[in-house]
Amino acid sequence: MTKYVYMFSEGDASMRNLLGGKGANLAEMVGLGLPVPNGFIVTTEACNRYYSDQMTITPEIQDEIFSSLAEMEQLAGKVFGDPERPLLLSVRSGARASMPGMMDTVLNLGMNDAVADGLAKLTDNRRFVFDSYRRFIMMFSDVVMDISRSFYEQAFEQVKKERGVQTDLELDADDLELIVSKFKEIYLREKGESFPQDVKEQLILSVEAVFRSWNTERAVYYRQMHNIPARWGTAVNIQEMVYGNMGDTSGTGVAFSRNPATGENKLYGEYLMNAQGEDVVAGVRTPFTIDHLQEQMPEIYQQFADITQQLERHYGDMQDLEFTIENGKLYILQTRNGKRTATAALQIAVDLVAEGLTSREEALLSIDPKQLDALLHPTFDPNALEAATRIAKGLPASPGAATGQIAFTAEQATAAKEAKRPVILVREETSPEDIQGMNAAEGILTARGGMTSHAAVVARGMGKCCVSGCSEALINASNQTMTISGRVFGCDDFISLDGSTGIVYEGSIATVKAEMSSNFQTIMEWADEISDMTVRANADTPHDSQVARDLGAQGIGLTRTEHMFFEAERVFLFRQMIVARNEADRRKALAKIKPMQQEDFLGLFRVMDGLPVIIRLLDPPLHEFLPTAEGEIKELADELDITYERLQEIINELHELNPMLGHRGCRLAVSYPEIAEMQTEAIIGAALQAAAEGIVVKPEIMVPLICEVKELEFVNRTIKTTADRLIADSGQPLKYWVGTMIEIPRACLTADEVAEEADFFSFGTNDLTQMTYGLSRDDAGKILETYYQAGIFEVDPTAQLDRVGVGALMRTAVELGRKTKPELELGICGEHGGDPSSVEFCQILGLDYVSCSPYRVPIAKLAAAQSALRYPRK
Amino acid sequence: MTKYVYMFSEGDASMRNLLGGKGANLAEMVGLGLPVPNGFIVTTEACNRYYSDQMTITPEIQDEIFSSLAEMEQLAGKVFGDPERPLLLSVRSGARASMPGMMDTVLNLGMNDAVADGLAKLTDNRRFVFDSYRRFIMMFSDVVMDISRSFYEQAFEQVKKERGVQTDLELDADDLELIVSKFKEIYLREKGESFPQDVKEQLILSVEAVFRSWNTERAVYYRQMHNIPARWGTAVNIQEMVYGNMGDTSGTGVAFSRNPATGENKLYGEYLMNAQGEDVVAGVRTPFTIDHLQEQMPEIYQQFADITQQLERHYGDMQDLEFTIENGKLYILQTRNGKRTATAALQIAVDLVAEGLTSREEALLSIDPKQLDALLHPTFDPNALEAATRIAKGLPASPGAATGQIAFTAEQATAAKEAKRPVILVREETSPEDIQGMNAAEGILTARGGMTSHAAVVARGMGKCCVSGCSEALINASNQTMTISGRVFGCDDFISLDGSTGIVYEGSIATVKAEMSSNFQTIMEWADEISDMTVRANADTPHDSQVARDLGAQGIGLTRTEHMFFEAERVFLFRQMIVARNEADRRKALAKIKPMQQEDFLGLFRVMDGLPVIIRLLDPPLHEFLPTAEGEIKELADELDITYERLQEIINELHELNPMLGHRGCRLAVSYPEIAEMQTEAIIGAALQAAAEGIVVKPEIMVPLICEVKELEFVNRTIKTTADRLIADSGQPLKYWVGTMIEIPRACLTADEVAEEADFFSFGTNDLTQMTYGLSRDDAGKILETYYQAGIFEVDPTAQLDRVGVGALMRTAVELGRKTKPELELGICGEHGGDPSSVEFCQILGLDYVSCSPYRVPIAKLAAAQSALRYPRK
Repeated sequence: MTKYVYMFSEGDASMRNLLGGKGANLAEMVGLGLPVPNGFIVTTEACNRYYSDQMTITPEIQDEIFSSLAEMEQLAGKVFGDPERPLLLSVRSGARASMPGMMDTVLNLGMNDAVADGLAKLTDNRRFVFDSYRRFIMMFSDVVMDISRSFYEQAFEQVKKERGVQTDLELDADDLELIVSKFKEIYLREKGESFPQDVKEQLILSVEAVFRSWNTERAVYYRQMHNIPARWGTAVNIQEMVYGNMGDTSGTGVAFSRNPATGENKLYGEYLMNAQGEDVVAGVRTPFTIDHLQEQMPEIYQQFADITQQLERHYGDMQDLEFTIENGKLYILQTRNGKRTATAALQIAVDLVAEGLTSREEALLSIDPKQLDALLHPTFDPNALEAATRIAKGLPASPGAATGQIAFTAEQATAAKEAKRPVILVREETSPEDIQGMNAAEGILTARGGMTSHAAVVARGMGKCCVSGCSEALINASNQTMTISGRVFGCDDFISLDGSTGIVYEGSIATVKAEMSSNFQTIMEWADEISDMTVRANADTPHDSQVARDLGAQGIGLTRTEHMFFEAERVFLFRQMIVARNEADRRKALAKIKPMQQEDFLGLFRVMDGLPVIIRLLDPPLHEFLPTAEGEIKELADELDITYERLQEIINELHELNPMLGHRGCRLAVSYPEIAEMQTEAIIGAALQAAAEGIVVKPEIMVPLICEVKELEFVNRTIKTTADRLIADSGQPLKYWVGTMIEIPRACLTADEVAEEADFFSFGTNDLTQMTYGLSRDDAGKILETYYQAGIFEVDPTAQLDRVGVGALMRTAVELGRKTKPELELGICGEHGGDPSSVEFCQILGLDYVSCSPYRVPIAKLAAAQSALRYPRK
Repeated sequence: MTKYVYMFSEGDASMRNLLGGKGANLAEMVGLGLPVPNGFIVTTEACNRYYSDQMTITPEIQDEIFSSLAEMEQLAGKVFGDPERPLLLSVRSGARASMPGMMDTVLNLGMNDAVADGLAKLTDNRRFVFDSYRRFIMMFSDVVMDISRSFYEQAFEQVKKERGVQTDLELDADDLELIVSKFKEIYLREKGESFPQDVKEQLILSVEAVFRSWNTERAVYYRQMHNIPARWGTAVNIQEMVYGNMGDTSGTGVAFSRNPATGENKLYGEYLMNAQGEDVVAGVRTPFTIDHLQEQMPEIYQQFADITQQLERHYGDMQDLEFTIENGKLYILQTRNGKRTATAALQIAVDLVAEGLTSREEALLSIDPKQLDALLHPTFDPNALEAATRIAKGLPASPGAATGQIAFTAEQATAAKEAKRPVILVREETSPEDIQGMNAAEGILTARGGMTSHAAVVARGMGKCCVSGCSEALINASNQTMTISGRVFGCDDFISLDGSTGIVYEGSIATVKAEMSSNFQTIMEWADEISDMTVRANADTPHDSQVARDLGAQGIGLTRTEHMFFEAERVFLFRQMIVARNEADRRKALAKIKPMQQEDFLGLFRVMDGLPVIIRLLDPPLHEFLPTAEGEIKELADELDITYERLQEIINELHELNPMLGHRGCRLAVSYPEIAEMQTEAIIGAALQAAAEGIVVKPEIMVPLICEVKELEFVNRTIKTTADRLIADSGQPLKYWVGTMIEIPRACLTADEVAEEADFFSFGTNDLTQMTYGLSRDDAGKILETYYQAGIFEVDPTAQLDRVGVGALMRTAVELGRKTKPELELGICGEHGGDPSSVEFCQILGLDYVSCSPYRVPIAKLAAAQSALRYPRK
């Protein structure tokens, strides 16, 4: 029979999955002999049972709870509900992963009229008793019975006002007894029955309420933000109450073993005397800093500081503690690895290793890779942010903070940049045509599109702040207005974006620049030593490549050659190529484009001296390069010297219903082998040129969107003929590689065949995810919202690799590919390459590298190291 | 070591894959002791070697050829190239599947100047010798050396003119010798070298030419039409020449053991005296019918008729023979199962069984399921067709023949129908809005879209002729013109479509109606007895269901409920539902739609009394129901009583970049559970009503586009709550089933989970194929053309199931699904359900049924029976 309830003495820190983090640590501290009030834990599995049993706690589990309670009564020498020697309880949630403040707690449980009377006699402290009782009624009403707190708060304020006092401390025992009776009246009024006097009923109802709080809206949202699966559930910790509100030698507080903002190795925290924990959090009174305790109760302070150090040593990490002092005796109510800023995380990690308190491996594992983002991008000045007004929320598509006036077109943004005027580019959705404008803007806001929409992908590549899929923003580009909740914003209005949270603010907000510390460098070095995989960058220009290399990139995993075509001068040549209706004209236009591409590639090879560079052949459908608005079409027709009707005809011909599944990728190279030929000439030409300069070049040519090996065979013929001719002509030897993106399900399913023609596979998990799910990232915004609410999805699969479906296809591709060619180089260049959970899956799959946008390289490197530690190869 | 060359005596009919059909049958006839000139076969594997060896015949294979040739010389008592007793050869292609006239042949090989002289002495027949020599030079030049036949034909005509004669028979030996010398001059002029006198060189060059002819444009096209894979290759048959041109007791002909047009059991064929086989085909002279031979050479006729009967009995099928009479001696040069019309195929199958010449099983296997199409649709009057002018060619999207004036809009088509004026609806591409117009038109022509585009799918469902993806047609709907090769067609012009070939003709062409014979019924009954799978229909209306049931459907596999919404009255209500911005308004509109849907469903249940009916919940994205043209939007806004701007806003909001991967399928039921609720009410309501009428109802509710089991869980809750409520209210018991389309790769990969929530899976292979290939069927037209030309694709994967990629996913889904639920009902409702090869794969996978459009039901039934015979299930 499954055991659903554990005494603290039966558990330890390793049982976190079953007992929750709080419970496991309480059990561990009991084992260490620390002063922890005794108690027991109802497991996370009991929570899952609660839900699968139609939200009831079965009699068997209730029996287990009461038998553990009996054991606890023995230990405490008190009896639950007995007025003579009453045992009072705290009932607290505790999930596997820390979810601070997300779930519910009931304190002082076991109080009723008889117990209150008995306790008053026992403690000779009526004030304390009724203070505890009034707290209990309010918490129970709020948490368990869903009665609004405000009724109670009003009544409480009313009494304070009648007594003419400012703080709760000034109320005396009679006042509090009066409040208790008022509270009981409110309860009766709201629920139509008296406040429950049966303490066992109180207990079971409270345990159920904690289980329910696992699925409150805020908890679901938090879980989603932090990728915590619903099936983990929460445990419930039931513990003897200790009282910080027993008088002047009692108190309660929270503290960190080191400074969580800076990482400084110094106890950090605050406390309140004659109070319960909720008061510290609620800010009822202003707490003292922990230093003050040293003066007020030096012995207690020293005992606490010692325990803090002991726990830090024991866990090898900075601790976040809750404590209570009851009549001059210290109790520890909780310890956990403390949350910290990115700066602090690095400082603490480096210090702990230096102090010999932990290993490099453990230190690396203690840092949340996603946190590093904050170190790489500007953030809002926290003071300025406090005063800011939030107007909407979209998806946190690309981190950083940006402020500027609104630009509705790429042209406006470019003009503003020239005028040194900061702007936010606001678009329904962006297209490749907008790239210059995106580059000119401080940040990008789109109304549509998900975390891997065009705007999001390009912005991350640029290291530029972006909020995407902000559906509240109704954008009317022709009127130059954006309407949010009925308010209209125009070109003169300032807005600010937080790309790390997705929040949009009105007005201008000051920002703080990013800086890279020596701790950062240290951590990156440790990561490199441990990783099995290298980390490359997705970079399209020499500039982006330089940024990537500075951030530690070990090569380029993806160069999207089409991005080079969008500069004003080039796009014209490229459009000439598109409207050419025969091969000869196409070749003419391509010949003009080639030297420019070659120059770009040369730049990449120079920056990446000694490292591999993957360059992908032209990928997007050609219509993406042509305008859609009538005016622009007319203008372009003039420029191209063809009639408007002719150009419109060409645009119509190129139009596609589902461009994602259309004429793009290698399909272009099959239809127009001369494009692949020109690009190969540019790549190999640049490589030869670089090699002649003494640069070590490792060019890898990547063919996109393969669904069938014969496509690759066909394009390979063009590439190899061209490359081998150039190399032979040059008289220099040059090694190059040809491989393919694996981004279509069928490529995974036939990877054994595809591998015959490929030196490497690079998983294009953006498209692979979209096709495996049948879900377009550009259209997914509203669907995802609905799915989160309905509990169908917990995370966005285009942001975090789906291991079950997409992962199965990848695994098939890896196995089949390596079966054909054991030395096949395997990597990933989808957006997932910068997501820690996805990087971990790549480690499990046995990939050779991950590739991500430059600013995600450090995150990926740390994640790769952590994955290597968690899933060692061999 | 692989053996690449087989003597006839080493082979038999079972070795067709290796020896080709012609070779295997020649070998078989040798085994039967029939008069077959001796020879040997270069295998199909040698052909594949030829291509993999960079189009050369390796010395080893050449050695094998010459050693077989030596053996043949022994048998013939003649020597290749020896003027004293020369051996002359025919070199003929012969693939696994018959490809009449598609590949090349060289006759009279081994002739040179010396041999000609020797042979003239030996036969004392100079006329015959130079007739053979001139034939050889021309064939060799044409087939092997790629010199235009027209040079030779002109020279030949020139001599005839100079001699003042009409036919070749009137030329004498000197004339023919002159022609030979002129032919050698032409050869020298064109190739810059003399006609080769080395007979071994002649032979190897000719074998290579036959191998090459496997990949001529027409052969590739034929293979593609008949799903013959490139890797099959062709064999080469090298046989001693026998001569129909030796004089008046020599001749040559072709004959069928039964009439290939009607199936009548009577020898049918034609022959020419003093001629070689090519003359019969080329129509140089008018041949006699075979009956005439009975008078001319009664003994030979009787011998031939006996052999014909013997072979028919031996093969159990109607035979198509080639024969030659050399100086009064009969030789059989070829036998094969004869091609026949659909009518003849059924007649012959039924007769052969009645005559005890074959079994039902063999008879069923002898009919090409695709042929049945011709029996179910009108065709052009063959006489009228001869005079017709072909103007363009598209894809044969839906079979049948149609004639009418052009209608450019659905409205025009509807108006014409009312005026009893036949029209062809001509559209760039069709959308669900066009359905009424499609129904009103005689046929549909689209410029875009493939075999499974909207137009194609809907037309097949309606049993209406359709040619899709006719990219030569430039359609300008606003000008009301269609331009083909510079010629402009308008509303007054008649055009005609052949939906079975994809050909578009100008003008009006008389058609012939379809009729179903008793043979047809007999074959269908036999098929049903043998099949493991049932065949259901995809039918959306009671009318279509009735058609399907009449054609033998054993249930409905797919009702697309959205098609019911497109009728004028309903679409308005449906649009009201779409523009409703809150649940209450949506429910109001839905309440008005419900009785109509329920009435439709009731009609389906009545028609399908006793059979299962799968009804799919609403599938397409909502924007498909809204207009896109400004005028129509204004009109609709007025009707809906909202502003134009508001409607435009809603349309913009609903716009999607990739609607295929957008907000559709079960995603609609998650966003708007009230739609699923209404549809469930209508289905269950209708089922209860039908059951009350005494009808046996088997309603199966199908949820489309599942990618994750939780979606199905969510929608199931709505369906089951609603259905169970209605059933409980009715007081009648009613069994219903809930299942899902499997049409997204991820659903296959997680089918074990999905099966937990499903009573049945129906493979939606249209979408599954598109997503697995990353290829939208609506945009695939031009890509497929290019891919065929480049040899990358051989067939359209949306028309014939891809067993490697899509098939792997289906297999996974079947295995995982049945692992969870062994009794899971499995079927297919994609367009592949009516394609014989795909039906065969469904048999292999172990599916329970296939479902296809009504007019394909007979094809699917025959294919299912054939598959059961070929791949029996234990």
